[in-house]
Amino acid sequence: MTIPSARRGLMLVLSSPSGAGKTTMSRQLLAQDPGISLSVSVTTRPPRAGETDGVDYRFVSHAQFEALVAEGALLEWAEVFGNRYGTPRAPVEAALAEGRDVLFDIDWQGTQQLRQSQAGGDLAAIFLLPPSMQALEERLRRRASDAEEVIRQRMARAADEISHWAEYDYVLVNDDADMCLAEIQAILAAERLRRDRQTGLVSFVRALLAG
Amino acid sequence: MTIPSARRGLMLVLSSPSGAGKTTMSRQLLAQDPGISLSVSVTTRPPRAGETDGVDYRFVSHAQFEALVAEGALLEWAEVFGNRYGTPRAPVEAALAEGRDVLFDIDWQGTQQLRQSQAGGDLAAIFLLPPSMQALEERLRRRASDAEEVIRQRMARAADEISHWAEYDYVLVNDDADMCLAEIQAILAAERLRRDRQTGLVSFVRALLAG
Repeated sequence: MTIPSARRGLMLVLSSPSGAGKTTMSRQLLAQDPGISLSVSVTTRPPRAGETDGVDYRFVSHAQFEALVAEGALLEWAEVFGNRYGTPRAPVEAALAEGRDVLFDIDWQGTQQLRQSQAGGDLAAIFLLPPSMQALEERLRRRASDAEEVIRQRMARAADEISHWAEYDYVLVNDDADMCLAEIQAILAAERLRRDRQTGLVSFVRALLAG
Repeated sequence: MTIPSARRGLMLVLSSPSGAGKTTMSRQLLAQDPGISLSVSVTTRPPRAGETDGVDYRFVSHAQFEALVAEGALLEWAEVFGNRYGTPRAPVEAALAEGRDVLFDIDWQGTQQLRQSQAGGDLAAIFLLPPSMQALEERLRRRASDAEEVIRQRMARAADEISHWAEYDYVLVNDDADMCLAEIQAILAAERLRRDRQTGLVSFVRALLAG
């Protein structure tokens, strides 16, 4: 008898204010767990230095973005600072059907829409809080040579993002990156073990009891 | 600012047919995690060799058991092979209120009653399946010098217990004890990180946003 492995994939959402470590956590999780892959968003914002089309984002024009929305090709989308960001539907649905998990690095607006989408039952949403706003501001200043006005704008947006913490299933304080990653991995491991995700169990138990 | 630690305790239920490794898992989990303690059941069955009153069970007479039921002192109780088993309410409620977790080594009847009790919202229920009925029978024969009739009775009861697997939140196949323990620990870690269990978050986020 083989151990049941068939299961539905799950959508793991990681949200946090910019600077709270979400992108670092995502990269480390993806590097250490072959069972989960990143949902690559489409965006109308121009690529930043070091970003690769199709890896970090799929970069499209405003007209292309509107066409994707019109044809229902996006699971969710939102506008931030005049730029649009969205999640292509087809690759997500294909992954879930094959029992592969998908990681989403999206904000509260995207999470709300994802929850309301057809695939909402497959969602486990994690919110990362910074240990303090000061720590957040230091990280923002350290990582980019942004103008003071941009920092101010990002901090205001961070407070707005944080105000949505209560819409998430899990809330973590990212005070220690290693511990935070371990906590995310524990959540993913536990979510995979939920009975209702393990579609192979019914036939496994039937065979078990049949001897 | 301190990281939020205040939270409600949770009730972690571990059920499995006799011989599927539940007791070994419980002992190892308790030994490695000071944040969780075992709910000691009361029972009318006589102590077995090596069992200590107040540690393995609280051993009581049938009259004492009936008095506990009558005064509402048990969260759940059930009768198995003519013996009664129950969970004392007071120590569980005290632990949960103090943010300590409680482990329950109970069967499907106890789990159903616990879910319907007032504390039901605090429940995370795990079912351990054996990799095969043959493996289960081997473990039963190895561990006890039970008569053939007792083995037969236990196997019938195991099948009955397994038939309730779908009433649990998580289902694990105990094919490898180390992996199984790690999975139980991941579930416990994840359940502790659920937003609705972390009662300290509201004031933490308020202080965070106030700077």
